[in-house]
Amino acid sequence: MMISTLVSRQQRLPLIAEASYRLVCPTNRRLTHSLASLASREPEGPAVRTPIPGPKSNILKDQMEKVHQTTSINFFVDYERSFGNFMVDADGNTLLDLFTQISSLPLGYNHPELIQLANDVRLIIPAVSRPALGAFPRTDFADLIANSLLRVAPRGLSHVQTMLCGTSANENAIKTAFIHYQTRLRGGAVPTAQQLSSCMRNEAPGTPSLAVLGFNGSFHGRSLCMLSITRSKAIHKVDFPAFDWPVANFPRYLYPLDENKQYNLEQDERCLAEVSQLIDTSKSEGRDVAALIVEPIQCEGGDHHGSARFFRGLQNICQDNGVYFIVDEVQTGGGICGTFWAHEQWDLPTPPDFVTFSKKTLIGGYFYRDELRVNEPYRIYNTWMGEPTKLVLLERVVDVIKREHLVAKAGELGAKLLAGLKELESRHPNLVMNSRGLGTLCSFDMPNTAVRDGFLKKAMSMGLLIGGCGEATVRFRPALVFTKRHLDIALALLDDALKAI
Amino acid sequence: MMISTLVSRQQRLPLIAEASYRLVCPTNRRLTHSLASLASREPEGPAVRTPIPGPKSNILKDQMEKVHQTTSINFFVDYERSFGNFMVDADGNTLLDLFTQISSLPLGYNHPELIQLANDVRLIIPAVSRPALGAFPRTDFADLIANSLLRVAPRGLSHVQTMLCGTSANENAIKTAFIHYQTRLRGGAVPTAQQLSSCMRNEAPGTPSLAVLGFNGSFHGRSLCMLSITRSKAIHKVDFPAFDWPVANFPRYLYPLDENKQYNLEQDERCLAEVSQLIDTSKSEGRDVAALIVEPIQCEGGDHHGSARFFRGLQNICQDNGVYFIVDEVQTGGGICGTFWAHEQWDLPTPPDFVTFSKKTLIGGYFYRDELRVNEPYRIYNTWMGEPTKLVLLERVVDVIKREHLVAKAGELGAKLLAGLKELESRHPNLVMNSRGLGTLCSFDMPNTAVRDGFLKKAMSMGLLIGGCGEATVRFRPALVFTKRHLDIALALLDDALKAI
Repeated sequence: MMISTLVSRQQRLPLIAEASYRLVCPTNRRLTHSLASLASREPEGPAVRTPIPGPKSNILKDQMEKVHQTTSINFFVDYERSFGNFMVDADGNTLLDLFTQISSLPLGYNHPELIQLANDVRLIIPAVSRPALGAFPRTDFADLIANSLLRVAPRGLSHVQTMLCGTSANENAIKTAFIHYQTRLRGGAVPTAQQLSSCMRNEAPGTPSLAVLGFNGSFHGRSLCMLSITRSKAIHKVDFPAFDWPVANFPRYLYPLDENKQYNLEQDERCLAEVSQLIDTSKSEGRDVAALIVEPIQCEGGDHHGSARFFRGLQNICQDNGVYFIVDEVQTGGGICGTFWAHEQWDLPTPPDFVTFSKKTLIGGYFYRDELRVNEPYRIYNTWMGEPTKLVLLERVVDVIKREHLVAKAGELGAKLLAGLKELESRHPNLVMNSRGLGTLCSFDMPNTAVRDGFLKKAMSMGLLIGGCGEATVRFRPALVFTKRHLDIALALLDDALKAI
Repeated sequence: MMISTLVSRQQRLPLIAEASYRLVCPTNRRLTHSLASLASREPEGPAVRTPIPGPKSNILKDQMEKVHQTTSINFFVDYERSFGNFMVDADGNTLLDLFTQISSLPLGYNHPELIQLANDVRLIIPAVSRPALGAFPRTDFADLIANSLLRVAPRGLSHVQTMLCGTSANENAIKTAFIHYQTRLRGGAVPTAQQLSSCMRNEAPGTPSLAVLGFNGSFHGRSLCMLSITRSKAIHKVDFPAFDWPVANFPRYLYPLDENKQYNLEQDERCLAEVSQLIDTSKSEGRDVAALIVEPIQCEGGDHHGSARFFRGLQNICQDNGVYFIVDEVQTGGGICGTFWAHEQWDLPTPPDFVTFSKKTLIGGYFYRDELRVNEPYRIYNTWMGEPTKLVLLERVVDVIKREHLVAKAGELGAKLLAGLKELESRHPNLVMNSRGLGTLCSFDMPNTAVRDGFLKKAMSMGLLIGGCGEATVRFRPALVFTKRHLDIALALLDDALKAI
């Protein structure tokens, strides 16, 4: 049978998918106007009617328990009724949400301009016909990247790799670092025949003894390799085999910063010296450190900050030792710190080698220096390699962020939030300590875990959802649509909750 | 400021998000009827107008090259114009697609009933307001799981954990196995204080020396830990550190099966004996094997099949040694094998401990035996833990699969496809060898990599998209909407392409 006879009847391919989509979602021209009026309808404040979790959440949890783990579930959420900075739970309680799905909602709940994307063929088609992006990308993929991620690229980093989540972002940035480290040792050559054969047995030289240097208190994800460098909580790590990689101490500052300059400077110096020494020791033991990975603020570990001077020192050590410098901005990126990336406040002489992201960017991935592209196919690869629908959403998020100057506003409002926390600290000196923040990514410490956990519950019962991290830290992770009005509600609730415990 | 004054003006929270959604997507009652007529408009056959990749794909690749790696890109796809079994590329070439985005499109391109979900509030709201499912699930989450994954749960496995992709599915099934292995050693107790403190230094006893046993030729993902057990291609593994875990040989059968019974039986016996021995050796070296992970068919490695007898033997060895038995059905699951899960054809006396999935299920995750739930919170956890929109899509996919009996049809059509390949084998004995298949997951071998790659290109130039795997294997991964009509086109094109090389 000849192919020509099979296809001869086909004159042209109709735009079937697009036509079928248009049947579903005819453009509504009154839309923009109508949505504008909805924006003013955010609840005026929290309203708590039941204990949280309430009876409906408990019934749903019992139902779910039969088929899926529920051990970490706080309560169930009525996302259809949640809006802006306010989350509504299954029992109709309205909470002011300054935790925002573990800091992953850039514009809060159901932002009208994102809901409007239901009208965009680019949202539904890739959801239904998901591409294997590494092999068969959409025709608009380069445009989508240009209109979303590249508009917020860190200075000096013009290349980006999309992935699915923060963990896969870190995994693949580290893989890229390993590839380049070994390529450098080979003088730029591709792997040798001996390397290719030995790696199939997980043996040297193809499987090298290389390490990634991380820090105590860090969090970089929960895959088994990432858990080798994640050291925020023991329950995340226990019972799992791990790579025996070196770990350095991260500065632990005393607050207020301006009263503890000398101590904190010594922290930086001590930690930097340790990093240098660990790199040397590891190398002398036959295990080169190929990459160093660090968060601008150790978020899960307890919101531990490092100074710009410390990070410049780290980059300097990395450059001196041929170690790739990876900045994990999964939680600090996206504008909450008052710049789109926290590391942009370090005044680095050259950009980091890799900047990883996820959460508020909706898609995971990493930016990297041009010379760190991988030239052989299928080395940095998986089936999906990200998802175009996330880029369509991010494109609109970036539109809103830029038009409304939301990053600058996070900086301004963050200063007010931090001032408010310091005022609470002066009013409740036995409960609130070490207030600190960058933009609206703020936190304070409480005396111990039990007091902190009790406080979080009390605040929730009053209508304020905030998060815990580290041993006894309270963290704020508002969306970028957080305003002075929400700040005032939050500070009043915090004061009431502190009085009540 | 009292909270009561802040919230007093709020009477009730309007269904803002849902109202705004309805403005965007008013229900179209003529929809179902109209879509039904579209279904008959799938192209009648392939139509190739340019070399592939064509000039437009090449321009897009140059554009993308400036900001994102492009080394593994075949060509760019016009997803809006692709439909059913036919993919249309950037240059307007129409290909019959039997590779389906690396086997991840259950119903082909832009299935009308999935496109119709653009009208479903449950698709757009979770896309815009994505939950951290482990902490704050949607009120409909248990229902969504019941209506999607549980309707296709493997016999005997009623619990499921959602994840993002196949790699995270395998990572977390393995983590769960490690947790239970160590818990068993502790007599059911939670980790000791010493384990909790030592694991923070990646040291025993909290960081145990445990192994996962895998097979030569396997593929379980590309995170650094999964690459320790993935052994399909050296270029995936080289330059990365790895866990030094034991590896067994997987059977390599001679075809046709009925002429090589004794040889193949010996393959099974030899590999099973090796697995037993490796578990013993590893234990004696102080590194217990906690889990064994295996694919029903080693897909990426070259479509290597194992017999039901072999897999029953593996499970038996695992049970005798207290080793968890993980079946990786990321590529074999979803109905393509003629049963929803390939392992359902093994006649196992009890279900596997874990069955992992992704690709055709649209969401990653794993089913597990009831007694393997993890009782402590935050051990199996990450920010997103999957995505509700994928379950909404999967719910509809399962509707269509069940209503149209697509799994049984994959079995029937697979037999026809395999018969067709065997006929090609008899006509082109120097080019086509070892035809094999389970359902429509079929394949054959060619003499070497160069011939296979040339053949794939030739077939593509004639309008047929198929995949390669292993050294010299051609693999077929059609969607479940593949029919006799498409099979006839494919067989004719295969014959033409074989004649042309």
